[in-house]
Amino acid sequence: MATIKPSLAKGTRDFSPAEMEKRNYIFNTLKTVFKKFGYNEIQTPSFENLSTLTGKYGEEGDKLIFKILNSGDYLSKAPENLLQEKSSNKLIPHISEKALRYDLTVPFARYVVMHQHELAMPFKRFQIQPVWRADRPQRGRYREFYQCDVDVVGSPSLLNEAEFILIYHEALSLLGLRDFTIKINNRKILTGIAEVIGKPELIVDMTVAIDKLDKIGLEGVNKELIERGFSAEDLEVLKPIILLEGDNTEKLTQIKEVLAQSTTGLQGVAEIEEVFAYITSLGCAELLTKCVEVDITLARGLNYYTGCIFEVKTNEVAMGSIGGGGRYDDLTGMFGLKDLTGVGVSFGADRIYDVLEELGLFPQSAGATTKVLIANFDKSTELFTLPLLQKFRQEGIATELYPTAAKLKKQMSYADAKRIPYVLLIGEEEMQSGLLSLKHMETGEQQKLSAEDVIARLK
Amino acid sequence: MATIKPSLAKGTRDFSPAEMEKRNYIFNTLKTVFKKFGYNEIQTPSFENLSTLTGKYGEEGDKLIFKILNSGDYLSKAPENLLQEKSSNKLIPHISEKALRYDLTVPFARYVVMHQHELAMPFKRFQIQPVWRADRPQRGRYREFYQCDVDVVGSPSLLNEAEFILIYHEALSLLGLRDFTIKINNRKILTGIAEVIGKPELIVDMTVAIDKLDKIGLEGVNKELIERGFSAEDLEVLKPIILLEGDNTEKLTQIKEVLAQSTTGLQGVAEIEEVFAYITSLGCAELLTKCVEVDITLARGLNYYTGCIFEVKTNEVAMGSIGGGGRYDDLTGMFGLKDLTGVGVSFGADRIYDVLEELGLFPQSAGATTKVLIANFDKSTELFTLPLLQKFRQEGIATELYPTAAKLKKQMSYADAKRIPYVLLIGEEEMQSGLLSLKHMETGEQQKLSAEDVIARLK
Repeated sequence: MATIKPSLAKGTRDFSPAEMEKRNYIFNTLKTVFKKFGYNEIQTPSFENLSTLTGKYGEEGDKLIFKILNSGDYLSKAPENLLQEKSSNKLIPHISEKALRYDLTVPFARYVVMHQHELAMPFKRFQIQPVWRADRPQRGRYREFYQCDVDVVGSPSLLNEAEFILIYHEALSLLGLRDFTIKINNRKILTGIAEVIGKPELIVDMTVAIDKLDKIGLEGVNKELIERGFSAEDLEVLKPIILLEGDNTEKLTQIKEVLAQSTTGLQGVAEIEEVFAYITSLGCAELLTKCVEVDITLARGLNYYTGCIFEVKTNEVAMGSIGGGGRYDDLTGMFGLKDLTGVGVSFGADRIYDVLEELGLFPQSAGATTKVLIANFDKSTELFTLPLLQKFRQEGIATELYPTAAKLKKQMSYADAKRIPYVLLIGEEEMQSGLLSLKHMETGEQQKLSAEDVIARLK
Repeated sequence: MATIKPSLAKGTRDFSPAEMEKRNYIFNTLKTVFKKFGYNEIQTPSFENLSTLTGKYGEEGDKLIFKILNSGDYLSKAPENLLQEKSSNKLIPHISEKALRYDLTVPFARYVVMHQHELAMPFKRFQIQPVWRADRPQRGRYREFYQCDVDVVGSPSLLNEAEFILIYHEALSLLGLRDFTIKINNRKILTGIAEVIGKPELIVDMTVAIDKLDKIGLEGVNKELIERGFSAEDLEVLKPIILLEGDNTEKLTQIKEVLAQSTTGLQGVAEIEEVFAYITSLGCAELLTKCVEVDITLARGLNYYTGCIFEVKTNEVAMGSIGGGGRYDDLTGMFGLKDLTGVGVSFGADRIYDVLEELGLFPQSAGATTKVLIANFDKSTELFTLPLLQKFRQEGIATELYPTAAKLKKQMSYADAKRIPYVLLIGEEEMQSGLLSLKHMETGEQQKLSAEDVIARLK
């Protein structure tokens, strides 16, 4: 077997112990909040039948799905002409029947349809698993990354939407974020606007354009709207809506005026108002002024939202959205189960990680694991320390004995590298007196304590 | 987009909320123990460069690796002749450069070599991630399953071996298992036996054969040994060793007699004795008679072990091994880093799951999540309960309000299906008196309590 210099596959990452501790800190915080709101975890397989995934993400998306080569003599049934023509695309279904998960949404829809008769509706689930995309890797964009989705299907109640706002607020606050905005819009408002202008067929073009307001400004949006078939008069009607000002109540009042002729549009406003009423009844009215913002330019580029739309941004660091979601009324239609309403949001774990890192918000403990290292001087002290090692662990204290009598400097470096906060030094003197030297690595402070006192200190 | 009836890819599984709770219960128990012994978690990517994996698992293993088709026009650089000949095997490296992880060992070796300059040695890591194999699916064998490995590299001390025995004992005991056997052998003993017989070149044949003692009995083993080149006299020498009786001390004494002429063999015995001495010094001597067993037929079919070898079996349920491992001295040699010693064990999570299920050892709480469901009678009671909902959650109690005023029977079925232990009933009477009706779902018992008392009860 030839020796090869090992490397990572392009666009993938290893996670070191320190990184894993921090990632688990984020995931565990999110899970705690999800569970408090009655959401349960599920997992779906890493690969699905190719036919389950194909056609769900548009033509560009299909290209980014990682296909798995069939096992065995996979070419035996491949049509000769496709091989001769080197038709890469057309050959795929003949040599690949499985593909890696591209997101958590389609597998969730498949799960709900397959298990519909066992599920207690409304079905509230969260799912935290990696997904894979054959994107060109670049800074902050990986070919393997975790998605973190929380959805409820089978309940039209807007209490769910209100609770997602509370979930965002509680989770991000627990993680230490202090200044973030949860934007809310409603697809029906966008529909209403397109109706009022008299161009309902252009709603997708309209939303795609105004979704870019943040990036390209009003002028850029107007230019794109013209290109997409809107007139100068349309722009005049749109302008005050796009540039809405005031607090949420003022904005909703103005939108209602503009949408007076659109039943659908007014219903969208009413839905947002009901979400806000729920939040007020839940005793959380202060969120509505502090961190919730009506933003009718919000469309999230996605066509499947049918009601409320959410997006979350931190205001403490320059960073794209760290979460988003909305209500969809036909998630499972693609698998033949019609009219099942759902609403859900997701958390961008990688971005949240970067934000916490930049703001120094990871707790000290999120990088460390072992609590105390017992130094190893020689065979006789080793023998003396072994019962202590076991005793400490019985007390629930993560403890290591350095496994050989290496130079003390090396053992100290080991404790440093692993961020072990305490080192216990037991030499001849300590063995005789029974008082152990406990060194606090950060301060350098050293104390002589009985074994019982060491345990009390470390617990 | 055509509607398709969804199905799972062959050999894969969905995990429902109840299954996830149970799986997490196992993984969290193991993680707690690993951390107490100073092991830290790492994760490696789901796919590796194909060249990293190829040639590490033998010819049969290579066939079971799932290969990922290159993205884009993957056929453009494929040699015409291979396409024409339909040479499935030879074509692979031309159309696939990535493959799914087949185990956690090779990616760990790659990790250690790539990060060798950042790692504090000894490096103690655990890793709990799925692996994928293109095996023919059958009962209990899946194409995606979790492995759970814990290893230390860079330390020759036999304290590590002793600690793995403690880790097995503590983890399995915490999971509720009462009767299990941790078998131990040493590769050097096997080498010594082959030396004593005078056929050191046949050591692999010998170990492969005697490893099957459990399955095919002494006669079967003897037959296979003859086929593999051993003589009738050899069998005579082997017989007392294979059929060793007595306690561990007696067994080791007998082995030492047989191996008196083999330095290597005696060193293997000495290593086991040192592991046992460590366990005794750690204050755990009772394990050596209770659940540790010297078994020199243990070879685990693997060629890379160089020192101690472990295997764990439960005696409460008929089931193959639920764990195993050993010391290896050249794990990273395949990637050019020579002479790095390591030792590690793994836990068979799927089998442990089945054992706990069969013995009814999962704690009640491992299936439930939400603590209390607030029933929803109508809009006015809903309004009354909303502040309570928020208050309960602030107290850390996982709480749900049923999101619509459905029939009570439906709401009760929902609580049953989710195994929610309590339902809070708040109708007109409760709203007026302020005393809430708390129903315990298992007993059917119903109590009138103030909100504060409900919180105290549920916390």
